[in-house]
Amino acid sequence: MLVTRDHRPGVSFWRSVGLFAFIRRLLFGAPLASSRQVHERLNKLLALPVFSSDAVSSVAYGPEEVLLALMGAGAIAWTVSLYVGIAIALLIVIVATSYRQTIFAYPHGGGSYTVAKENLGTYYGLVAAAALLTDYVLTVAVSIASGVFAFVSAYPEYAHYRTEFCVICVMVVALTNLRGLRESGALFAGPTYVFVGSLGLLCVMGLYKFFTGAPIHYVHPLSEHIPVLKTLGLVMILRAFSNGCSAMTGTEAVANGIPAFKPPESKNAATVMAWMATILIALVLGITFLAHVYRVFPSESESVVSQIARSIVGRGAFYMVIQWSTFLILVLAANTAFQDFPRLSSILARDRFAPRQLASIGDRLVFSNGITLLAGVAAILLIKFHGDTHALIPLYAVGVFAAFTLSQTGMGFRQTRLKHPGWRLRSGISFFGALITCVVTLVIAVTKFMQGAYIAIGLILALVFIFHKIHQHYITLGNQLRLTDESFKEPAAVRSTAIVLTSSIHQGILPALEYARTLSHDCRALFVEIDPLETAMIRDRWEKFGLGVPLVILESPYRSVIGPILRYLEEVKKERPNYVVTVVLPEFVPKKWWHKLLHNQSGLFLKIALMMRKDIVFTNVRYHVEK
Amino acid sequence: MLVTRDHRPGVSFWRSVGLFAFIRRLLFGAPLASSRQVHERLNKLLALPVFSSDAVSSVAYGPEEVLLALMGAGAIAWTVSLYVGIAIALLIVIVATSYRQTIFAYPHGGGSYTVAKENLGTYYGLVAAAALLTDYVLTVAVSIASGVFAFVSAYPEYAHYRTEFCVICVMVVALTNLRGLRESGALFAGPTYVFVGSLGLLCVMGLYKFFTGAPIHYVHPLSEHIPVLKTLGLVMILRAFSNGCSAMTGTEAVANGIPAFKPPESKNAATVMAWMATILIALVLGITFLAHVYRVFPSESESVVSQIARSIVGRGAFYMVIQWSTFLILVLAANTAFQDFPRLSSILARDRFAPRQLASIGDRLVFSNGITLLAGVAAILLIKFHGDTHALIPLYAVGVFAAFTLSQTGMGFRQTRLKHPGWRLRSGISFFGALITCVVTLVIAVTKFMQGAYIAIGLILALVFIFHKIHQHYITLGNQLRLTDESFKEPAAVRSTAIVLTSSIHQGILPALEYARTLSHDCRALFVEIDPLETAMIRDRWEKFGLGVPLVILESPYRSVIGPILRYLEEVKKERPNYVVTVVLPEFVPKKWWHKLLHNQSGLFLKIALMMRKDIVFTNVRYHVEK
Repeated sequence: MLVTRDHRPGVSFWRSVGLFAFIRRLLFGAPLASSRQVHERLNKLLALPVFSSDAVSSVAYGPEEVLLALMGAGAIAWTVSLYVGIAIALLIVIVATSYRQTIFAYPHGGGSYTVAKENLGTYYGLVAAAALLTDYVLTVAVSIASGVFAFVSAYPEYAHYRTEFCVICVMVVALTNLRGLRESGALFAGPTYVFVGSLGLLCVMGLYKFFTGAPIHYVHPLSEHIPVLKTLGLVMILRAFSNGCSAMTGTEAVANGIPAFKPPESKNAATVMAWMATILIALVLGITFLAHVYRVFPSESESVVSQIARSIVGRGAFYMVIQWSTFLILVLAANTAFQDFPRLSSILARDRFAPRQLASIGDRLVFSNGITLLAGVAAILLIKFHGDTHALIPLYAVGVFAAFTLSQTGMGFRQTRLKHPGWRLRSGISFFGALITCVVTLVIAVTKFMQGAYIAIGLILALVFIFHKIHQHYITLGNQLRLTDESFKEPAAVRSTAIVLTSSIHQGILPALEYARTLSHDCRALFVEIDPLETAMIRDRWEKFGLGVPLVILESPYRSVIGPILRYLEEVKKERPNYVVTVVLPEFVPKKWWHKLLHNQSGLFLKIALMMRKDIVFTNVRYHVEK
Repeated sequence: MLVTRDHRPGVSFWRSVGLFAFIRRLLFGAPLASSRQVHERLNKLLALPVFSSDAVSSVAYGPEEVLLALMGAGAIAWTVSLYVGIAIALLIVIVATSYRQTIFAYPHGGGSYTVAKENLGTYYGLVAAAALLTDYVLTVAVSIASGVFAFVSAYPEYAHYRTEFCVICVMVVALTNLRGLRESGALFAGPTYVFVGSLGLLCVMGLYKFFTGAPIHYVHPLSEHIPVLKTLGLVMILRAFSNGCSAMTGTEAVANGIPAFKPPESKNAATVMAWMATILIALVLGITFLAHVYRVFPSESESVVSQIARSIVGRGAFYMVIQWSTFLILVLAANTAFQDFPRLSSILARDRFAPRQLASIGDRLVFSNGITLLAGVAAILLIKFHGDTHALIPLYAVGVFAAFTLSQTGMGFRQTRLKHPGWRLRSGISFFGALITCVVTLVIAVTKFMQGAYIAIGLILALVFIFHKIHQHYITLGNQLRLTDESFKEPAAVRSTAIVLTSSIHQGILPALEYARTLSHDCRALFVEIDPLETAMIRDRWEKFGLGVPLVILESPYRSVIGPILRYLEEVKKERPNYVVTVVLPEFVPKKWWHKLLHNQSGLFLKIALMMRKDIVFTNVRYHVEK
């Protein structure tokens, strides 16, 4: 009898889940049918904003963090920051060139996890995955914190609510993603192009003013005389460089997303990658140079970009466009992580390295559990660090560069193995990229270790360990559960002793007694005597109303209900070794939910206590209270 | 077959509950047998500390709060505080005289709830009970806050941790009570007598110095010149009086506890009551007078008693004895509430006005749930009000005086009804006491309304409403469940359709299938199709390993598992109207608890969704994973 039916969640379902379902539907919309899972294909002009918002938005905090690390050395900071900016620009060229090869080698999406796993081995892949997951969380935290910083730079009267704003932003982005984001291309294009355009224009205006020798208007005159706290040293420069590397997070986004491009996918993706790298380099250098020209001093209350903009164009409409588009592109960057994190964790779940709940697609065709997890962890980080970008930066970037290193090393080995035409040059580029990013990873890890990198590194290692344990569990379990012709044997016929637990004798237990009677000829009722004075009365009433089921009375001098029952069940199992014991628990279903609080919850505790006992079946027979 | 067995919670029980049980046992000790429930009888010298610590300890904050309310009026405050002190002393005489009659009328304990319920009616009793419960919570909060204030007055370096200390004190007192307090008499005697003795000696020394004209050493010279902020008005004086009434909380303790006295119980209790009133009056007047003499100015950082003690004896050993005994007696006062609150709430539970869990006696023969509830609410209050006595005082006393009023009105009606010899005078005393305390209740409620009394009043009204709703539920339920010869009818024989829920076909579901087969001839397995590509494979394997149970496949285009199952169950019930549907859910029991997190929890959601459906029996067949 094979019956197939079509069901959509109907009224009865929602009514049964009640208010909760209503709110859920209000927030997330009606469920979407599996058949509606389609993929939007993006042309290059739409793909650029979608895949580059994460990387490009980093210029809002990258140059600022470089300056901040150098400020202790006095006015020389601005000069040094220029050299650091140039080093980062070179690094971008190297990584982008190397990743260009990945784009052509993995047209179906070459995430670091996939590349490292295929070419280096599973555990390298897991390290890359752990590093990326950690960094996606930090991308959300840092981007949102920096976005809110841009906002409170423009509206300092709200500076007091930074943390609250951050958490609200995370929630809004998470909810949007839980609803399922359809119109992504169009949505991203606006803020990204406005941001790139307005910041580009700002740079041009600033440079024009500088080269035409226009008078320079400093917003903070005091920044001319910054105190020298430490002498400039190698460690300080390396720290500044490590901070600046945060501007490179998100560079791998294009390589992850190749299937979303219009054909020819790889070629288009490579072009977009080149555009993105160019924009990124231009903006990093532009902002660093302008900060130098205008002697901008990183401050707790106003971002560097905001100070530059105020210096060049004053606090007018153009300034507001810059601040708002900065805020928006940073929120979009967080949004990118909300797409990447659930996707990567679902791949891990499908490979059985992560809890399988992360692979299940929710009502709205998105990986709801992954989204919720990411939002929760990011919100905790933001609250913990009071929405302060500077405090979060040391945790950041180390994971991304570890993933860069693994991915490029993987590519190098792949090219060496496949020996396609020109493999020597290609693998050379990959290995060179790997070497450089490896050095950068070590620099970040060492110079930022005590300020927070140890948290990120510890987290990555812990995640790899957890992936390993989870995998072990799923594999062991799968082997045990596997049904094959060899392992299959018809289970022995079941004989059952039915035991009804009663706390007194009333209407509510009659259905359970009747049900238990049909389960087995060996049916008993169990009563735990708390107050010996009541026992005689119970016995009398049982004779009358007990439906002929024998009553077993257990003394309990310590007033424990669960202890005596467990002991008795053990005895029954000894008495009847090949029987299954069915414990029948009569359960009230009150009219109102709060009535539940007015009754003892022994049933729940008993279920937990019986959890580990074998050959016990637990049956709930419910009695529905009428009024 | 009536079997009776003796069980004590054995090793198997503790092992099954594991670490939790171990910690529990460590904190609370081994369970005590019901037979060990004995009552200690106290002689007068031990009863005095046990029943008066609450009232007597109030002198640590009462006079201070009077002064605080008057300080705005400038130096005249000290003079006015003397008159307020005398008014409170008179009030103590009136209430004590009136309660003396309750002691003789209710030798088994005359709590306000009992007296008001018996003589005025149930709802007056409930108001008294709600008022008392509210005040017990506040007694804990105010006493602990004031005790910690005494401590940080002596050790100002710890002032920063006031709230934390308060919460720790509440937890220590709660744990002590959860363990069961045996040696109460001896425990209370020490701190109480030392407190009364040392404070008495301090008063004598202060008065001696004053009358012999010894030079007066002011600790805060600035208090000579306190600024006049407002003119002294009636409202200010009444507020001061209301504050001072907090010194009278706990006066009813003796009347509640008469059965704990050695015979003749009532006579001894009356004597102790008189002693207590005398001590209370002496200390209230003494401290108020000394505060006047030494121009003590209430401060955020040092209590009035501490300032007086420093002025008279300096910061030596005697000062430390005073501060420590103040701290200890205030903790004991909180402890008194930990005895009274659970007892009163257990009486309410037995009368079916409160959740029945409050009536159940825990492992250590104490009302564990009541103790935990009290500790939780008091801790929340202390955290919310930052452990600040002044902030809590306006919530306090209004409940106690409402209970006084109801109890004495009840006594008045009782005497008028019974017409024992001398009833005219006696009922006169009771009604006079009721009138005075009623006026005081109104004064407190009005003058303190906005500062916090509205919280206490709102809470009392809410509690009475809750008692009412709970009572209604228990009564309605009791009527429905009652089994009598008339209402009893043998339930119809049960026929069952067994439905096994499967998510795939593996070893883990075989036991459930086999069990379900024995339940009914109409046995089916249900599979919700999330991914249509898997269905054919499942079908093939089911033919081989499905033990011949027919498989029903439900399509689910929205990927919902619960919706299609609920719909199908409705159809089965329509198909077989007189059957019970037994839903058999195969359940994993993994080796390690965290493995549970790696599997979907659809079973739990399904149980909740099925909660309100009638004629559905829920059966868990567990599969124990081996490794």
